[in-house]
Amino acid sequence: MSEQLRDDNRKLDQIRDIKIKPNFTIYAEGSVLIEMGNTKVICTASISDRVPPFLRNQGRGWLTAEYSMLPRATEDRNMREAVKGKLSGRTMEIQRLIGRSLRACIDLEKIGEKTITVDCDVIQADGGTRTASITGGYMALALAVKKLLKKDKLKENPLIANVAAISAGIVGGQPMLDLKYTEDSTAEVDMNVIMNSKGEFVEVQGTGEEATYTRRELNEMLDLAEKGIMELVELQNKIVEETEV
Amino acid sequence: MSEQLRDDNRKLDQIRDIKIKPNFTIYAEGSVLIEMGNTKVICTASISDRVPPFLRNQGRGWLTAEYSMLPRATEDRNMREAVKGKLSGRTMEIQRLIGRSLRACIDLEKIGEKTITVDCDVIQADGGTRTASITGGYMALALAVKKLLKKDKLKENPLIANVAAISAGIVGGQPMLDLKYTEDSTAEVDMNVIMNSKGEFVEVQGTGEEATYTRRELNEMLDLAEKGIMELVELQNKIVEETEV
Amino acid sequence: MSEQLRDDNRKLDQIRDIKIKPNFTIYAEGSVLIEMGNTKVICTASISDRVPPFLRNQGRGWLTAEYSMLPRATEDRNMREAVKGKLSGRTMEIQRLIGRSLRACIDLEKIGEKTITVDCDVIQADGGTRTASITGGYMALALAVKKLLKKDKLKENPLIANVAAISAGIVGGQPMLDLKYTEDSTAEVDMNVIMNSKGEFVEVQGTGEEATYTRRELNEMLDLAEKGIMELVELQNKIVEETEV
Amino acid sequence: MSEQLRDDNRKLDQIRDIKIKPNFTIYAEGSVLIEMGNTKVICTASISDRVPPFLRNQGRGWLTAEYSMLPRATEDRNMREAVKGKLSGRTMEIQRLIGRSLRACIDLEKIGEKTITVDCDVIQADGGTRTASITGGYMALALAVKKLLKKDKLKENPLIANVAAISAGIVGGQPMLDLKYTEDSTAEVDMNVIMNSKGEFVEVQGTGEEATYTRRELNEMLDLAEKGIMELVELQNKIVEETEV
Amino acid sequence: MSEQLRDDNRKLDQIRDIKIKPNFTIYAEGSVLIEMGNTKVICTASISDRVPPFLRNQGRGWLTAEYSMLPRATEDRNMREAVKGKLSGRTMEIQRLIGRSLRACIDLEKIGEKTITVDCDVIQADGGTRTASITGGYMALALAVKKLLKKDKLKENPLIANVAAISAGIVGGQPMLDLKYTEDSTAEVDMNVIMNSKGEFVEVQGTGEEATYTRRELNEMLDLAEKGIMELVELQNKIVEETEV
Amino acid sequence: MSEQLRDDNRKLDQIRDIKIKPNFTIYAEGSVLIEMGNTKVICTASISDRVPPFLRNQGRGWLTAEYSMLPRATEDRNMREAVKGKLSGRTMEIQRLIGRSLRACIDLEKIGEKTITVDCDVIQADGGTRTASITGGYMALALAVKKLLKKDKLKENPLIANVAAISAGIVGGQPMLDLKYTEDSTAEVDMNVIMNSKGEFVEVQGTGEEATYTRRELNEMLDLAEKGIMELVELQNKIVEETEV
Repeated sequence: MSEQLRDDNRKLDQIRDIKIKPNFTIYAEGSVLIEMGNTKVICTASISDRVPPFLRNQGRGWLTAEYSMLPRATEDRNMREAVKGKLSGRTMEIQRLIGRSLRACIDLEKIGEKTITVDCDVIQADGGTRTASITGGYMALALAVKKLLKKDKLKENPLIANVAAISAGIVGGQPMLDLKYTEDSTAEVDMNVIMNSKGEFVEVQGTGEEATYTRRELNEMLDLAEKGIMELVELQNKIVEETEV
Repeated sequence: MSEQLRDDNRKLDQIRDIKIKPNFTIYAEGSVLIEMGNTKVICTASISDRVPPFLRNQGRGWLTAEYSMLPRATEDRNMREAVKGKLSGRTMEIQRLIGRSLRACIDLEKIGEKTITVDCDVIQADGGTRTASITGGYMALALAVKKLLKKDKLKENPLIANVAAISAGIVGGQPMLDLKYTEDSTAEVDMNVIMNSKGEFVEVQGTGEEATYTRRELNEMLDLAEKGIMELVELQNKIVEETEV
Repeated sequence: MSEQLRDDNRKLDQIRDIKIKPNFTIYAEGSVLIEMGNTKVICTASISDRVPPFLRNQGRGWLTAEYSMLPRATEDRNMREAVKGKLSGRTMEIQRLIGRSLRACIDLEKIGEKTITVDCDVIQADGGTRTASITGGYMALALAVKKLLKKDKLKENPLIANVAAISAGIVGGQPMLDLKYTEDSTAEVDMNVIMNSKGEFVEVQGTGEEATYTRRELNEMLDLAEKGIMELVELQNKIVEETEV
Repeated sequence: MSEQLRDDNRKLDQIRDIKIKPNFTIYAEGSVLIEMGNTKVICTASISDRVPPFLRNQGRGWLTAEYSMLPRATEDRNMREAVKGKLSGRTMEIQRLIGRSLRACIDLEKIGEKTITVDCDVIQADGGTRTASITGGYMALALAVKKLLKKDKLKENPLIANVAAISAGIVGGQPMLDLKYTEDSTAEVDMNVIMNSKGEFVEVQGTGEEATYTRRELNEMLDLAEKGIMELVELQNKIVEETEV
Repeated sequence: MSEQLRDDNRKLDQIRDIKIKPNFTIYAEGSVLIEMGNTKVICTASISDRVPPFLRNQGRGWLTAEYSMLPRATEDRNMREAVKGKLSGRTMEIQRLIGRSLRACIDLEKIGEKTITVDCDVIQADGGTRTASITGGYMALALAVKKLLKKDKLKENPLIANVAAISAGIVGGQPMLDLKYTEDSTAEVDMNVIMNSKGEFVEVQGTGEEATYTRRELNEMLDLAEKGIMELVELQNKIVEETEV
Repeated sequence: MSEQLRDDNRKLDQIRDIKIKPNFTIYAEGSVLIEMGNTKVICTASISDRVPPFLRNQGRGWLTAEYSMLPRATEDRNMREAVKGKLSGRTMEIQRLIGRSLRACIDLEKIGEKTITVDCDVIQADGGTRTASITGGYMALALAVKKLLKKDKLKENPLIANVAAISAGIVGGQPMLDLKYTEDSTAEVDMNVIMNSKGEFVEVQGTGEEATYTRRELNEMLDLAEKGIMELVELQNKIVEETEV
């Protein structure tokens, strides 16, 4: 990997400063504030004793995710989706991705007829909000599970593995890890990688932004992402262990 | 005022611990996180160079407010209004109140053809979210004005007076100030009072919650509210003065 | 009170000519056409044998209100809310106020699992439509109750007291009662007062229209409103008594 | 035509009592309350100086119609379309019919770039609301034209002929004119006929209500409708002539 | 009938080339592609074992229809109704007409608590899409019934008679049958006639397009339509008989 | 690659029978019916002379895509999105993917201020509808470009390379190409690969369906997809060349 530095002095394979503040809110079963550089997301996990109609009376649970941004999370103010009266395609795409990713880390048979809703609300956005939402959403989920186990509301741990996510991309011809907004908005290729703690892929999405990329570039981005995700997984484990619920 | 204490050890005429954290986000022209006890609201003021159609080419500006709650700001999770596809009556009522209240403190002739949007996003709710939004919304507005004056984007200060708000109510027959959720939900009467720093009323809303109240009780609640608002105004002034923008 | 007259020759503390035409429509359990000057509202009370989900199987009933204006009730035609596809914030605010006010006059335990819907449809608007809707809505409700008692569909009278409403305001520095549209649109302060027949407040809403008001002015407006409401209550009682249902 | 009488003592070819109250509201350019038996519709004509985008800069005007029912215009209360958030298919079908019918009686070249909106609001419904809306809508239009001619806002009369409408149907095998609700709801065939004062058809809609009808029955219903419409046209002319605008 | 020919060399009383391709799709219980000249509509009949709430537990079924156009079915592309978020008035009017027409040909008592949904999707539009939808919709329905009878899912044939539809109109003063788009868009009168195979009317809709028509013209259009419909019925019978289901 | 055969007798690396019928509709600038086995999609390209607001007066064009399914394209009937009043998340995700993919193959500077809308309407669905839409959408686009070049409405060919797409997946532990519905619905991993004719990636989306996959499995699926896409590109080229526009 080249020695070139980015405008925030990071190396090409370096993730941004990351902070995860557990128990950020008082009502949710699990909650964190996750910060990756200037990107900040409140993630909460809420448990309810109902499942959607298509799952009723099957003895298994469901996990779903929702994603939103505060209107001034970004450089320019965006109109609220509640005011527009509908979710944008981008929002739907992201929250479906978060939901699929987190369902890959939990055995829903083991939670019974419950629904876990993971809410990811971006209060400040500087690139990588969907991957931070997945990494933080896993944390909210893990803390909720820890609390339910402690209170004997769950008999056994339904979590299979950690899930974490990071972006990689090609900017000015150069593969790099964890793009912030100024990098992301000029990237030729943007890839979001979601993996579990066993080093397996949960989802890979690589988009040429009106450009294309080769198999070799694909592989370089995957290498970067794997490195970053392993660092995130380590931090997740440390915090889940240390946090009182 | 009686010496009786409330379940959080406050006196009847005592407001909750209040924290106002200025410059809470990096993009908005003005922003605060306001906390009144466990109620926490992110307030931002955003400036744009457009006005709504009914004001075009009149040389004056506009101020509007929006209000929302994160789905898990409360004990039970609420469905997002963006998912329902429309704002609730409660949300509309509150954001119209915030907007009217803040317009009473600014001379919109002096800002030219600009729109100021004050966003109040409740991240944790324990009663008094609309009054905290007004008190905090004024702060975001005042910080944005301070910044624009400093950058010479405004010629003169358009602010006329501070605006702050507080609730008072009658709980178990007893008038008291600044109701938290457990008090609010059992109150016979709930009154929201918005005043300016000159001691004048901007808005008074007193609702018998399927109950009624006498003229004497009305006066007692107004006395409590005046006391609380003067304390809020003092804090607002201190923080606006101290904050670098 | 000053001897100054208004442009329709009313004294400052004088309400407009009021007509209440009972049994205005043939299908509703209770109905009136209420006219306050040129403001005309059709109010109907409809009874159904279902309650909203949150009240099922609790043995008590519910009362809700809806408010609308015909598109040409006003000087300029307004687009229908059904065409826009949603209720405006103003409509929601008004119908929530009507509902709360009328719920304060009825013991919903006594009606069993029924829902009473009070519809207020403004066919001509000259100021004070929300207060006329409350005064007329009470009439529709009282006539419906009278009919149900007569038909033995109610065992005992659930009404606790009359509810009536009126506006007061400050126009050109002068407090006055029952504002018509030309007064309302130039008022510095607009106050809506809802009281019951015992002289207690049900709701007080005083709004500085981008202006403010003092405690003394607040008291003068409340004095005017109390006087007006007592006249309305007298008329309500006379008509309910005289009307065959 | 048989001598058999209907349950309201009408002959088979007899229309219901009809009242048309001109200038029913004070703001609209033209307005009537039309009553056909217990069916009551407020019709207003509103003129604006704008045309829809597809007609801009062509020097001709437009006429459109809207139709609605108050929620308790009927035996059972109907949910408001503004609450549902959309117009029903029935409403759209009816207001498109009213608009087409009235456009057939006016030369839109002669009104310049204006839009005439005819609002038909049913306050009580006992069958035949769409035909009463057309007959009354023509009246509101004719009164508005009379007023504009008087005020020199129109140079020449754009009206080509009266338009009026009535229903006919087959009930219990018997063709009859002007069905009220109890007849309409049991009819095998329901036909709405719209004609002008020259005896020409503007629109014919004959619907077998899950039944069918022969060519001979079609002709009998058309004969009845022609008779009824000529009576309506006579009344329209009398009232337009007598009314001061 | 005059010897004059139309621009596609048809006689005034001649329908366009018609093709009906049965079993056009593999999943629907019944399906056809119907082509009338350049107008092409995919019609499918789908059977489900549920009925709408208003029919539950009455032992009878329901039939409903839906109609849509692909966005580029026409000369200019139309915005999708799913993108607009609502059905247009035209679509609602048409699908209500298709549904009513098809319900006139089936005894819903005989199908039990099932719902038949007939979908008519226009893939190319050159006039007469609603009448082609009815003629083709009947075919899809008849094939579905044939399949259900064969599989013993129906005990007896619920069909009462064929239903078919055609347009007639007056173009340049000349009555003619089966208008294509260039004729339809310049017609003075446009009539849609729906009949059954017994020669009875199911529905007649004759619209003066901002024009009017006489009783004699009405009769000429009905004569043309009867002729066309009998030809369509013959073709329908032939294909239903020949098709393996 | 194993010699095992699938239930339709395909080899693991074999695509389904593919038919592309050019000029399928008469109005669109370019159109095809593409069939991949039982999956059938009508793809049209429509050109308009307007661009979206964010691109006005920049001299370049835009390309967007829309995707929909007929309600009975599938085994069970789906409710229309126009009836629900909104696009599903799945639809949005797919049409955003089609649009991004096709924008990667065209130089929008070269088409001037035009918008190309590619509509993909699935009339029968048996897996792989999104990839068939991209492959067919490219064809509609290429035919439209060919027509515009022929008519001198375009000066130079804006197309950079073909775009085609295919799915690969892991079913029962076995990587395979071009999944049909019965395979797709039981797959552990589902990957959609979009490439251009130069062998570069436009987009890669690999989703563990509540499962995960290794780097080696990822590589096997990419190998399969590359093989399939090169076959599709060859067919695309042959048909574009042969088709008269």
